Amino acid sequence: MLELYHNETSTSSQKVRLVLAEKRLDWESQHLDLWKGDQHVASYLALNPRGVVPTLVDDGTVIVESTVIMEYLDDAYPDHPLRPAAAAERARMRWWSRQLDEGVHAATSTVSGAVAFRFQHLDHKSPDELEAHLMRTADPARRARQREKILKGMETPLFAEALNRFDRLFSGMEIALGESPWLTGASYSLADAALTPTLTRFDHLQFLGVLDHRPGLADWYARVVNRPSYDAAINEWLSESDIPLMDEKGSAAWPKIAQPLGPH
Amino acid sequence: MLELYHNETSTSSQKVRLVLAEKRLDWESQHLDLWKGDQHVASYLALNPRGVVPTLVDDGTVIVESTVIMEYLDDAYPDHPLRPAAAAERARMRWWSRQLDEGVHAATSTVSGAVAFRFQHLDHKSPDELEAHLMRTADPARRARQREKILKGMETPLFAEALNRFDRLFSGMEIALGESPWLTGASYSLADAALTPTLTRFDHLQFLGVLDHRPGLADWYARVVNRPSYDAAINEWLSESDIPLMDEKGSAAWPKIAQPLGPH
Repeated sequence: MLELYHNETSTSSQKVRLVLAEKRLDWESQHLDLWKGDQHVASYLALNPRGVVPTLVDDGTVIVESTVIMEYLDDAYPDHPLRPAAAAERARMRWWSRQLDEGVHAATSTVSGAVAFRFQHLDHKSPDELEAHLMRTADPARRARQREKILKGMETPLFAEALNRFDRLFSGMEIALGESPWLTGASYSLADAALTPTLTRFDHLQFLGVLDHRPGLADWYARVVNRPSYDAAINEWLSESDIPLMDEKGSAAWPKIAQPLGPH
Repeated sequence: MLELYHNETSTSSQKVRLVLAEKRLDWESQHLDLWKGDQHVASYLALNPRGVVPTLVDDGTVIVESTVIMEYLDDAYPDHPLRPAAAAERARMRWWSRQLDEGVHAATSTVSGAVAFRFQHLDHKSPDELEAHLMRTADPARRARQREKILKGMETPLFAEALNRFDRLFSGMEIALGESPWLTGASYSLADAALTPTLTRFDHLQFLGVLDHRPGLADWYARVVNRPSYDAAINEWLSESDIPLMDEKGSAAWPKIAQPLGPH
């Protein structure tokens, strides 16, 4: 039996839910409330020592790191394959999936935090509670980034850097999608699943204006959203607290996004 | 025909040379002098926009990112497979390979730079030349880290963080190697190749004292070094300038390594 420890809004969880849906696999949900800190509880840290979501447990075998989980699912459950057959296309698929590790995941976390999620902390925690929350993140570099985006919001230099990274990502996707319908060729692959939640985050933050001058990316996202997997993995897991917060704070922040990510 | 754009001392290049040797593949060498800045030349940036080594060109198909190249070689050239057959072991292999992206590659670069390679700049460049060199790295975060380790050496807070990361890596490897002879099970895999250059760097810096109280890791490294691939990929590519520099500066720095990475 497949069990997924995950969260509605986490982009890494969304990636894995997309793959589970694309592969028509049944799974049992183990939900974590990240604002409450479920990821720092000892029983979860025993499965996932970094204290991040998601974690997949397949009949007792524990798999962590969403990129690793995605390839695992395609290895262990070969029906509905999501990796291209040709070696060069597989390399492209892995190159695209790696972009998340090459700054895109961090940029998503920075922008979401600086625009919207910082208020989950600022509106609900005293300064001491916030400090205690921050100290639960063991990695000092990750903790420093969290502090920056919660305290400084869009004023942190990390924010401008993150927009830069998105500009580079979207430009690269636009070029790739001018050459083939999906990121790595003629078929939907793990790369498309890997990058969908990045666009979904822009969608939920009301930042889809970034697609206005990127027709290839706009068309790709429209096709992604129309796949049944998108309903199963994203729309059936909309958080009642996170979605309105992203909508409100994102709409207000849009002018700060429009120019750096606009035509230039 | 396989062509590899690489550098003797770069750990990412060493990883790929190990895989080429383990798979008994013939390849043509395109050598880059990283101190001279060959990686920033337009003709190379056309192949590898980030300006890093290595790049593989297989009959015109360009593959970048060493982790992607390693899986590509195993996909495109199935003889002498270096990935375990079982899905769970493949996931372990990818998890170990990912540790390089999860701070280990950055830590290797920090420690090597702070201990030894900073002198390639400080001894040969004027302050203006050093500044010009730094400005050729486009990514501001990567540039800031380079500046820190060149100017502050072992005094940068990044250095202590890097040693911490190695302590965590080596402890994890010691546990894994107590359970199976190779990192992901009974056979040598891409994960072993991926992590070999990290230990090689400790070797070249005269830091192998870290193995004294890690018998499993010590035994693994002895077995790795005895494979024919190690001669072909590492020993036949020893840099005449980098090796004596690492030897001299590393030997002097060892007391600063011995305690943080010692028994505790």
